[in-house]
Amino acid sequence: MKTYLDCIPCFLDQALRAARAATGDENIQRQVLDSVAGMLPGLPLDVTPPEIARRVYGIVADLTGNEDPYYEAKQQANRLALSLYPELKEVIAASSDPLFTACRLAIAGNSIDMGPRTAYGDLESIVQKALTSPLVVNDYEILQENLARAARILYLGDNAGEIVFDKMLIEELRQYKEGLEITFVVRERPIINDVTMKDAVDTGMDRVATCISNGSDTPSTHLSRCPAHLESLFRTADVIVSKGQGNFEALSGEQGNIFFMLKAKCSLVAKLLGVHTGDAVLKHQKI
Amino acid sequence: MKTYLDCIPCFLDQALRAARAATGDENIQRQVLDSVAGMLPGLPLDVTPPEIARRVYGIVADLTGNEDPYYEAKQQANRLALSLYPELKEVIAASSDPLFTACRLAIAGNSIDMGPRTAYGDLESIVQKALTSPLVVNDYEILQENLARAARILYLGDNAGEIVFDKMLIEELRQYKEGLEITFVVRERPIINDVTMKDAVDTGMDRVATCISNGSDTPSTHLSRCPAHLESLFRTADVIVSKGQGNFEALSGEQGNIFFMLKAKCSLVAKLLGVHTGDAVLKHQKI
Repeated sequence: MKTYLDCIPCFLDQALRAARAATGDENIQRQVLDSVAGMLPGLPLDVTPPEIARRVYGIVADLTGNEDPYYEAKQQANRLALSLYPELKEVIAASSDPLFTACRLAIAGNSIDMGPRTAYGDLESIVQKALTSPLVVNDYEILQENLARAARILYLGDNAGEIVFDKMLIEELRQYKEGLEITFVVRERPIINDVTMKDAVDTGMDRVATCISNGSDTPSTHLSRCPAHLESLFRTADVIVSKGQGNFEALSGEQGNIFFMLKAKCSLVAKLLGVHTGDAVLKHQKI
Repeated sequence: MKTYLDCIPCFLDQALRAARAATGDENIQRQVLDSVAGMLPGLPLDVTPPEIARRVYGIVADLTGNEDPYYEAKQQANRLALSLYPELKEVIAASSDPLFTACRLAIAGNSIDMGPRTAYGDLESIVQKALTSPLVVNDYEILQENLARAARILYLGDNAGEIVFDKMLIEELRQYKEGLEITFVVRERPIINDVTMKDAVDTGMDRVATCISNGSDTPSTHLSRCPAHLESLFRTADVIVSKGQGNFEALSGEQGNIFFMLKAKCSLVAKLLGVHTGDAVLKHQKI
């Protein structure tokens, strides 16, 4: 998707929050805001929001000297999610459809996001809500049909903490169908609270899937910015699981057999998906 | 209060919403955003937010050619509030403390605001909530004590629609104490959905109070920008009722016997008031 006018105030908002996470110096925070504001006039909007976010968070890193403002937040999210892991594994195992329960939890895990305006709140409540609320867009049956004839899964990760929920879903995919070749994709460098290879190792994702980097510093998966082997994996995957809003923003309209799993986190993306902000979505796109 | 870094993204947000209300031309909306963004770097923050908002809405008016983007919204808010007037007068009359009920409703009326990010929603629900929820800051007893020895009231209005609730409160003040001299202040020119003399006439406010203009185009009451006779009224009033966040932002810390009546509409002002966003406040300030 292209960038909309609504995204412009949001970039400033994100810049301020990231600057505050990166430094306590209010003068530098102001410099970040000024620099991002100064970048906006005339900025072409025919690129995706994550491509502009890349520049915004680049300014934060350059001016604060902190390349990973959400480092602590990511560590904490991983720890908290790992602490819930044993209990959630039992919930999945005891459910009537473990794969579907794992999908719902993986979508709930996408709530853990430092990008949007609204803080994500209490993870345990989010999990409870996920287990009782319906998916507002629910293409799970199509996912099942596609898995029946799938051999290769490309799973595009999004956030720290959430990655533990992704791991549970990948474990269920392996239970559901033996012999699946599953590749999990992380960001090349820290941006927002997105997963990097460190998170994959810290959470044991590297023990359940082949983990590779997107080779890029955008909080998304832009094929034009990805290394050739990832683009090739994308083009040949039987099923692509795309987690989160950043990946959706980059891959909406892209060719491939994609299953978007995300919480809609702003009114703009919610509108594009035909849902409300906060809604859980499992949406199939095959172009 | 001074302007905080948090206000900067909010100005862009307000500019976009006002530009959209002013014109359907997306190119002009973009020009507004670019112009406001271009104004931000280096902008001194030692002035109040409404003083910067004045410039933001000035840019909207200049670039869209529409000096009153919320004209229709204001007309509609007045009409809706007037339609509730007879029923609410009965509610006030039947209550155990009519003046207090009128205060609560006047604060609820402050919900009608096109400035903040979150739309104000359904007025009838707001009224119902106001009648059952407590004031989170409640200096009503101090207001009563002050009214007992008051002769002159200066009432600083805020928004269209809300003015009908202000009228009900002024009518109750007259019931509460005979012979009060009450002056209601409107903005000189349209800005956001703030009241102007037209709203005072349209809603009959001019029949229950002496209505004067603040002589300024800020969405607030800045004494330095007000005509001498208003500053004089401010300095000699026994009780000043200050409605809304814009007036609070301008008058917080100002000398005078002020009763702020408002809904806290952003986390920053809520924090300064020691409340949460959405809370109803009747706060005394005497410096």
